[in-house]
Amino acid sequence: MIRFTSPAAFAAALAALPAADEPGREAALERQSRLTKPAGALGRLEDIAVFMAGWQGCERPRADAVQAVVFAGNHGVAAQGVSAYPPEVTVQMVANFEAGGAAINALTRACGAQLSVVALDLDRPTGDITRVPAMSVEECLDALNRGAAALRDGTQLLLVGEMGIGNTTPAAALCAQALGGAARDWIGRGTGLDDAGLARKAAAVEAALALHRAGCTDAFETLRRLGGREIAAMAGAILAARLARVPVLLDGFIACAAIAPLVRANPALTQHCLAAHCSAEAGHARLLSTFGLEPLLTLGLRLGEGTGAALAVPIVRAALAAHDEMATFAEAAVAGGH
Amino acid sequence: MIRFTSPAAFAAALAALPAADEPGREAALERQSRLTKPAGALGRLEDIAVFMAGWQGCERPRADAVQAVVFAGNHGVAAQGVSAYPPEVTVQMVANFEAGGAAINALTRACGAQLSVVALDLDRPTGDITRVPAMSVEECLDALNRGAAALRDGTQLLLVGEMGIGNTTPAAALCAQALGGAARDWIGRGTGLDDAGLARKAAAVEAALALHRAGCTDAFETLRRLGGREIAAMAGAILAARLARVPVLLDGFIACAAIAPLVRANPALTQHCLAAHCSAEAGHARLLSTFGLEPLLTLGLRLGEGTGAALAVPIVRAALAAHDEMATFAEAAVAGGH
Repeated sequence: MIRFTSPAAFAAALAALPAADEPGREAALERQSRLTKPAGALGRLEDIAVFMAGWQGCERPRADAVQAVVFAGNHGVAAQGVSAYPPEVTVQMVANFEAGGAAINALTRACGAQLSVVALDLDRPTGDITRVPAMSVEECLDALNRGAAALRDGTQLLLVGEMGIGNTTPAAALCAQALGGAARDWIGRGTGLDDAGLARKAAAVEAALALHRAGCTDAFETLRRLGGREIAAMAGAILAARLARVPVLLDGFIACAAIAPLVRANPALTQHCLAAHCSAEAGHARLLSTFGLEPLLTLGLRLGEGTGAALAVPIVRAALAAHDEMATFAEAAVAGGH
Repeated sequence: MIRFTSPAAFAAALAALPAADEPGREAALERQSRLTKPAGALGRLEDIAVFMAGWQGCERPRADAVQAVVFAGNHGVAAQGVSAYPPEVTVQMVANFEAGGAAINALTRACGAQLSVVALDLDRPTGDITRVPAMSVEECLDALNRGAAALRDGTQLLLVGEMGIGNTTPAAALCAQALGGAARDWIGRGTGLDDAGLARKAAAVEAALALHRAGCTDAFETLRRLGGREIAAMAGAILAARLARVPVLLDGFIACAAIAPLVRANPALTQHCLAAHCSAEAGHARLLSTFGLEPLLTLGLRLGEGTGAALAVPIVRAALAAHDEMATFAEAAVAGGH
């Protein structure tokens, strides 16, 4: 199991990311050229098959074992009136996940992904980032490691989601700190904030940036000061997946914001990630563009929980099915192969 | 079984299309407002659930029985050098479909749709539309009826695809005739045509339009003169689905072009259709925009066969799973419902 024993160990892991396997990629590319279709006619499905081949290091990759993890956390900054919902909804929704009644339960059942839920100290909200760091060093390391520990042996494709009332505010602060831009470039209405709430959110992000900017000296410190437990856990899970060469379907704004400080430190981090869905939350399109990722889906979701990522699982499976199961021109005796 | 006994019967069916069921739609809308998510947070998934509820006339619609049909036909206009592949590839690809080795086989297996293949007189290509009408009245009625006959009892969602070397040329002619614009607004490179081929294709479409424009007095005559057997069969299947209140996932440029003359005659025809995927074939985005349909996916496919539609089946299923399986705010004791 991957474990970050210190901020320095986390930074060292982030600095030495493994790359995709070139022979696997090339074998998959060569296979694509022999399948019974005009070259390139399956569009992004072909790219997905080659991407998966690179991370699995084989010509015909699989996505049978798909793991989904929802991390939940509570946020001191919720006291600033930055969400349309009260903080107790976080624990209520965790109960809903555990009972199988949330959107992510239905969507992971529909796509055959194994779902687990990791609730991170919901009775101890993080510090209010407008006044103090979100977490201590120990708390942030613990959250990163609980994320990394969630990755199961044998997982072939990982998706992570989140639940945390108020968490678009730390997410916006992470983006602004890691990637530049003003608070208002990164904030949106989250679950349905009104204009006054949006103004409070902008003020909260600005206050947090003013307080912590000088202290955000690296990815770990940025996550620790401006993030949250479920946010750090997602970052830990996505980094652990990379170290284990497990590709990741990125979900929405908050899941992507979680890795913004890591991408700032090492832009190669996005290489094992597919952007599943571009959320309706303002800022997500900008974030994906900064990452150099083109979303597979744009269906107007703005829910989190991993729902956007779950929707893209069948796209990946379809890409691999075509890659694996199609006949070659020679096998099918079809004219026109190269 | 739905059968069009004459061109007049076809026109009468097209003029009297059934509408979606309002009580079903409203029950689904009301249910959406009670599910444990912020209002609208599932974006287009919510619209899909309400759309399906309207056509199935019930609060909780299903898409368990998904039927895919690939129609294949040969085209006299292929002799004009309008395709990168020789005409014998049509029959070779039908054999590939029947052996299970084509992309649509892999994609329908991946999404659990039942696939059938209808080869329409492949040894008798249609007339070359640059010189004569594609079909006689009897041939066109037969193709429409073979399409209509393909719809099985119990199908809850239909998708139709096609195979026919050269068929982007009649498809472009149908669009230009039914919807206006020049030949070059509707032609593209199909399976990979070079510049000289593209020029021949533009010339073929222009010649066909000049010859047949005056005779294209209604949807039937337009299909008969400028279409093809697999194209008319798709139109017949999609119209038959409407008469049976079965919703349709529209595939790519050719499947959409098949109904362009029908939509010109009665724009309400698109009401039971979801646009699954916007193809990389030039003209498809324009066609969907003319239809007032927003595609669910844009993944760069340009293969036909129904592949774009098959990719959207899991999106529809996911929408219905969330709609059917999610807990309400009251059931889950989550704060914030309305």
